Amino acid sequence: MTEPESGSVSGMRTRPASSLDLAGELRSRLARGEWSGGEKLPSIRRMSEETGLHRLTVLKAYTRLKNEGLIEAREKSGYYDAAAFASADGRSRGGGFAAGGRAAETGTGVTGYGAAPGEPELPSLLGELHSRDCRYQLSQAQIDPLLLPNSYLAEQAKHVFDLYPRVLGTYAPLRGDDELIGAIGRYLEEDCGFAPEPEELLVIGGAQQGIHLAAEALVRPGDAVLIERPSYSAAIEIFEHRSARIVPVDIYPDGYRLDELEQLMRQYRPVLFYLNPTYHNPTGYCLPPEQRKRLADLAERYDCILLEDDPFRDIYFGPPPPLPIYAYDTSGHTIYLRSFSKYIFPGLRVGCAAAPAHLMRKLLEAKARSGGGTPLLNQKVFVHHFRSERSRQHLHKLRTALLLRKEAMERALRGSGWRWETPKGGLNLWIELPPGLSPRRLLADSLAGGPSPAGAPDAKPETVSFVPGSFFDPSGRSDNRIRLSYSLLSERLIAEGVALLLRCADKARRS
Amino acid sequence: MTEPESGSVSGMRTRPASSLDLAGELRSRLARGEWSGGEKLPSIRRMSEETGLHRLTVLKAYTRLKNEGLIEAREKSGYYDAAAFASADGRSRGGGFAAGGRAAETGTGVTGYGAAPGEPELPSLLGELHSRDCRYQLSQAQIDPLLLPNSYLAEQAKHVFDLYPRVLGTYAPLRGDDELIGAIGRYLEEDCGFAPEPEELLVIGGAQQGIHLAAEALVRPGDAVLIERPSYSAAIEIFEHRSARIVPVDIYPDGYRLDELEQLMRQYRPVLFYLNPTYHNPTGYCLPPEQRKRLADLAERYDCILLEDDPFRDIYFGPPPPLPIYAYDTSGHTIYLRSFSKYIFPGLRVGCAAAPAHLMRKLLEAKARSGGGTPLLNQKVFVHHFRSERSRQHLHKLRTALLLRKEAMERALRGSGWRWETPKGGLNLWIELPPGLSPRRLLADSLAGGPSPAGAPDAKPETVSFVPGSFFDPSGRSDNRIRLSYSLLSERLIAEGVALLLRCADKARRS
Repeated sequence: MTEPESGSVSGMRTRPASSLDLAGELRSRLARGEWSGGEKLPSIRRMSEETGLHRLTVLKAYTRLKNEGLIEAREKSGYYDAAAFASADGRSRGGGFAAGGRAAETGTGVTGYGAAPGEPELPSLLGELHSRDCRYQLSQAQIDPLLLPNSYLAEQAKHVFDLYPRVLGTYAPLRGDDELIGAIGRYLEEDCGFAPEPEELLVIGGAQQGIHLAAEALVRPGDAVLIERPSYSAAIEIFEHRSARIVPVDIYPDGYRLDELEQLMRQYRPVLFYLNPTYHNPTGYCLPPEQRKRLADLAERYDCILLEDDPFRDIYFGPPPPLPIYAYDTSGHTIYLRSFSKYIFPGLRVGCAAAPAHLMRKLLEAKARSGGGTPLLNQKVFVHHFRSERSRQHLHKLRTALLLRKEAMERALRGSGWRWETPKGGLNLWIELPPGLSPRRLLADSLAGGPSPAGAPDAKPETVSFVPGSFFDPSGRSDNRIRLSYSLLSERLIAEGVALLLRCADKARRS
Repeated sequence: MTEPESGSVSGMRTRPASSLDLAGELRSRLARGEWSGGEKLPSIRRMSEETGLHRLTVLKAYTRLKNEGLIEAREKSGYYDAAAFASADGRSRGGGFAAGGRAAETGTGVTGYGAAPGEPELPSLLGELHSRDCRYQLSQAQIDPLLLPNSYLAEQAKHVFDLYPRVLGTYAPLRGDDELIGAIGRYLEEDCGFAPEPEELLVIGGAQQGIHLAAEALVRPGDAVLIERPSYSAAIEIFEHRSARIVPVDIYPDGYRLDELEQLMRQYRPVLFYLNPTYHNPTGYCLPPEQRKRLADLAERYDCILLEDDPFRDIYFGPPPPLPIYAYDTSGHTIYLRSFSKYIFPGLRVGCAAAPAHLMRKLLEAKARSGGGTPLLNQKVFVHHFRSERSRQHLHKLRTALLLRKEAMERALRGSGWRWETPKGGLNLWIELPPGLSPRRLLADSLAGGPSPAGAPDAKPETVSFVPGSFFDPSGRSDNRIRLSYSLLSERLIAEGVALLLRCADKARRS
């Protein structure tokens, strides 16, 4: 209790007491860009003298940061901010402040299909995959932070404290802040073709929380649940953990086979169908309007709740997508989940659920029990940007940037013999590899470091990541597929990353 | 999409399209204090002309705000900000921005014990009770927002955007921000007597989320779970919903009867014991150190996880409380939940869990599945205030203010014949009513409006709220108890509220 608030020993905000403390402090200062000009960090000896920590302790902290890819050791020279040497074009850091990823995409170990005997050991979890230090991350379906207007948003956010001086001291209502509920209601009415009452809306922390609440509220152990094949791995995990009986529904470029789907509904009497009909993850497929209407009818006939996850709606490259199924549903059988994290404030965790009153009541109960409330601050920061003119301009630019990145990826893949449907929206290509090329083998090679380009045989081996199809499909049907995301890297890095991946594939097929 | 960003029709940020829109906008502007000087709001006719909404639509919006207690209608005069007429001493508004309450305290309908036949109809849920428009809210165990240094905190929070310009665009790691994990680790080491590794800590959104995660991770349907009698109603609900077999453990001013407790452990082999040993809610009791040590031994012997919820540790009125049970546990049988919401930033929802590695792994899996991640912004705002010199000064002042409020409540109850143990910390008095006085009857009367004080027979009836003991104890053993919270209201209002309650009790006993 006698520690000074700002001791400023060697610029430290507090006096570090261990290598972990020191690493934490340095991580923050790196994130703030204190050494981004390419300056050297204090030497181990100097840091040790100034902090009073043993030199080994300082070394331990530096090594930790080095392993996280945050700093680089140059022989006989010292430690440097790694980001200062990376080109400022969206290559992601390997850990620490800049790492992480949506809880969903962080994975946990519940799913993750173990390697078959004799196969190389691979990261079995999406989270583990993302956390690999990798030169070209084509595995993360996340928007490049450099495409967000960070400084503008930060200034806007500060304004919220002037508008609501007590925002930090106030609990948000369970359902969500009234102002935000109103704004989301207007958005749904204007852009999504349905006009929910405020009582039919709930603020959530993102789509995954919505899926979890719906599973808790509506699914009992042993209940049948339909899930698209392939599907979002976090959703598969949630329903598996709920001990649901999972029944796959194949999805094709033109939608479902509705007769097969009806047969499944008749046979299994599922309580719920989890689906992602618009620029589906991982395939990018988009369900046509007539199927949406017929799906709403089937849901009513077989009394099956449609859990419609719709995070990519605003990321389209041609005309806007069809209206949500929710807009076609006249019988109250749909729950609509809308995450905005993909393109507005990923760090805020604000999204919404819409549902008819009898389902909303159950979602609210589940949310109250979970203690997973959305803080008022986040809701207020969000609502003051959401749907502003600036936000619309940003979204427009973002669509253009993503279209260019998608096209860069498709260009780089030309002539490879790899096959995919060009998506009309979303963040990914869903690629069918040629026969004889195993995604697992390819991933092992590409993470280990691919062959250098011709003409530069001595270059350091470089690495590239993607997600094997098996991560989205426990049944094994997608074992010749991979997901490549074009949302995180710049066009140039996409081209380089795909070229590297194709060299890895060449090598794998020759070996 | 053609709506102007700031049309400023009648000062409106956006052009309202319905009474709900209008109400939402007005609510925000009221919260910002636009009419706090006691000015009249625009008349219905003027608002209708300026917004283009029908006069009935405007009336509907005004009526909604009036019902929420946000504005007051004065006959033939117009509408006014209700807060402008309330004294600025912490009396809470009935709804909207200032309302809400922790999800826990908001309740859901799962617990809440229905009125017996013939009994008056009462709010059966804590949330419903809190949302009642009530002059003297003695039901809410929440810190008076006026005791928080709101402006200072808001200025501090703005600073975070300068330190971390990309904080809004960055996902937080699943476990929590490294800097925050480090700061919490140091706090636990210095103030709580145990030094967890970073891997043994997890950032959570509050105690209730921690209880929910532990229930999901460790309790299967049919498992026996020990819970104190009385206990936190949200915890009872969570374990009931998990279909656990709930076994009550009576708590007394000097702790548990340990021989009884051991007998229960032997008999039921519970997987978990949920407990709140320090300034227990609702009783205020504090488990002595020797019982903490023996409890840790019992947990090891019977392989029962202790889920130690410790939100009130820093709210003590004499010497600080004994160390947490976690500090006495040498066998890895305790999960420690630490909410900071009670006195730092209730709106941020930042807390932590500590657990040995094998339990932490399960909590992490449950957190990943739930999608209930804690946003990075909130963690960064929190860590820059937590444990600063200013934060410690604030906590010191807060303890003094709460002690004075507790004493004011005890003074007001003197001579009533009501009985309680003086708590050494926490936010509540746990009161035993005299025989023949039913808490449910008393609540019905006190919410309906009590008799005026002698000498002012024509005054408008006033209302006072408290929580009946049955809300904390489904077994019926606490049916002669009530919880009175001294944390929300000023000393003067506490004195007035208790006096009113005693008049209601007098009336109830005479009738």
